[in-house]
Amino acid sequence: MAELTVVKIGGNIIDDSSKLNEFLDAFSNLPGKIVLVHGGGKMATDLAAKLGIETKMHKGRRITDAENLKLVTMVYAGLVNKNIVAALQARGVNALGVCGADQNLLLAEKRNHPSTDYGYVGDITKVNTLALCKQIECNAVMVVAPITHDGQGQLLNTNADTIATEVAIALSRFYKVKLIYSFEKPGVLLDAEDDGSLISKLSAEGCALLVEKGTINTGMLPKTENAFHAINSGVEEVVIGNFVNMENGFSAGTNISQV
Amino acid sequence: MAELTVVKIGGNIIDDSSKLNEFLDAFSNLPGKIVLVHGGGKMATDLAAKLGIETKMHKGRRITDAENLKLVTMVYAGLVNKNIVAALQARGVNALGVCGADQNLLLAEKRNHPSTDYGYVGDITKVNTLALCKQIECNAVMVVAPITHDGQGQLLNTNADTIATEVAIALSRFYKVKLIYSFEKPGVLLDAEDDGSLISKLSAEGCALLVEKGTINTGMLPKTENAFHAINSGVEEVVIGNFVNMENGFSAGTNISQV
Repeated sequence: MAELTVVKIGGNIIDDSSKLNEFLDAFSNLPGKIVLVHGGGKMATDLAAKLGIETKMHKGRRITDAENLKLVTMVYAGLVNKNIVAALQARGVNALGVCGADQNLLLAEKRNHPSTDYGYVGDITKVNTLALCKQIECNAVMVVAPITHDGQGQLLNTNADTIATEVAIALSRFYKVKLIYSFEKPGVLLDAEDDGSLISKLSAEGCALLVEKGTINTGMLPKTENAFHAINSGVEEVVIGNFVNMENGFSAGTNISQV
Repeated sequence: MAELTVVKIGGNIIDDSSKLNEFLDAFSNLPGKIVLVHGGGKMATDLAAKLGIETKMHKGRRITDAENLKLVTMVYAGLVNKNIVAALQARGVNALGVCGADQNLLLAEKRNHPSTDYGYVGDITKVNTLALCKQIECNAVMVVAPITHDGQGQLLNTNADTIATEVAIALSRFYKVKLIYSFEKPGVLLDAEDDGSLISKLSAEGCALLVEKGTINTGMLPKTENAFHAINSGVEEVVIGNFVNMENGFSAGTNISQV
């Protein structure tokens, strides 16, 4: 099987143009087939504030009412996505920016939570692996914004880590997939304040212990959950860390071990 | 050669959800290969007003400073484009929303006007016909937002009529192309107030006379210029009119005659 790398970048990189350029330089040098999934950054929150639209959060997840859905669609699938695409094109990468509605790539259902109404938040039900593979085999570098749809015309807001996870799992049927969750830290740390305390290999048991001790908490927990889901669902290699430092050989990030 | 229809819709349809739905119903029933190019509508102007960003116009064209470029990128390539894509997917159309930066589809250069600084406005220099054809041959229905790029990472704002024209011309090398500029009127009218005064066939000479008489003025002039450029550059058939009424057989629109 051919090798394919899925890289997910979060808001911290997107909000900082010099960090973003550094990332895009490294990303555009990756050999083989590549997919980029990006988050949204603070721009949607900033824009909401300017427009007097309230940003509601629940356990680190945005509550997406109709006005906020418009905002994230504009910012994620428009401003962020197309600027990344243009920046990659300038680096000779055949980028194609999409959201989950394009070619029905990511079908989702509106979250039906027993106690919290998350609004227009979508949980992925199906990845259109065939359409994705066709594009990849035609050498398109897919740049995926964290917006999905329900197939009935409704766009939905979906967590970018989750999208990267589900895309990587789907593609692992046809490729040897490496999935990198890139963020500002070198990886999962024993001490959040000490970048030198990197855990280079994380097992499910080790992770459970660190969650119990509170070392892995709110911010990191969904990422490790996604990571273990990916490695246990066919993805060949899963790494949490700083992609630029990894590419420059300064760090290997945290490798997620299969059970 | 296979037949292909390029339809351009403007802001008036986009701003009115019931008109948009009516249009999308008709569009999704079109046989053969189809491409949709959309304008922006008033949403960008409304959003600018809410954000206190000044909208400057010069001879009916928007002056696009950096803040306005962000706005049109968000609204055109994000909000409008992705909602149209989701609505077409709900109608069983394999829509793929793009702007000109995606796959380097529409390369442009920043307009260098002797007297007016239009800001980040792009004049198209190259259509990536190969990439466009590849997508079309893979049965993607391209939904094109009126944003281009300069190949150096800079997005640019480009008139949607012009994009439809250049895309139709480029595709006419490989397809028998019909280009429809759809808007709210039945076509080019002898009397703007009388929908019954439709000109069913417009020649270049006839058009020149109507321009001289002031019948064809600011609003319609760029459209007719684009239309004659298209018909004289390989496009098989060019029509100005109301697409929904045409599809329902109520009107044939204004057919543009080749010189």
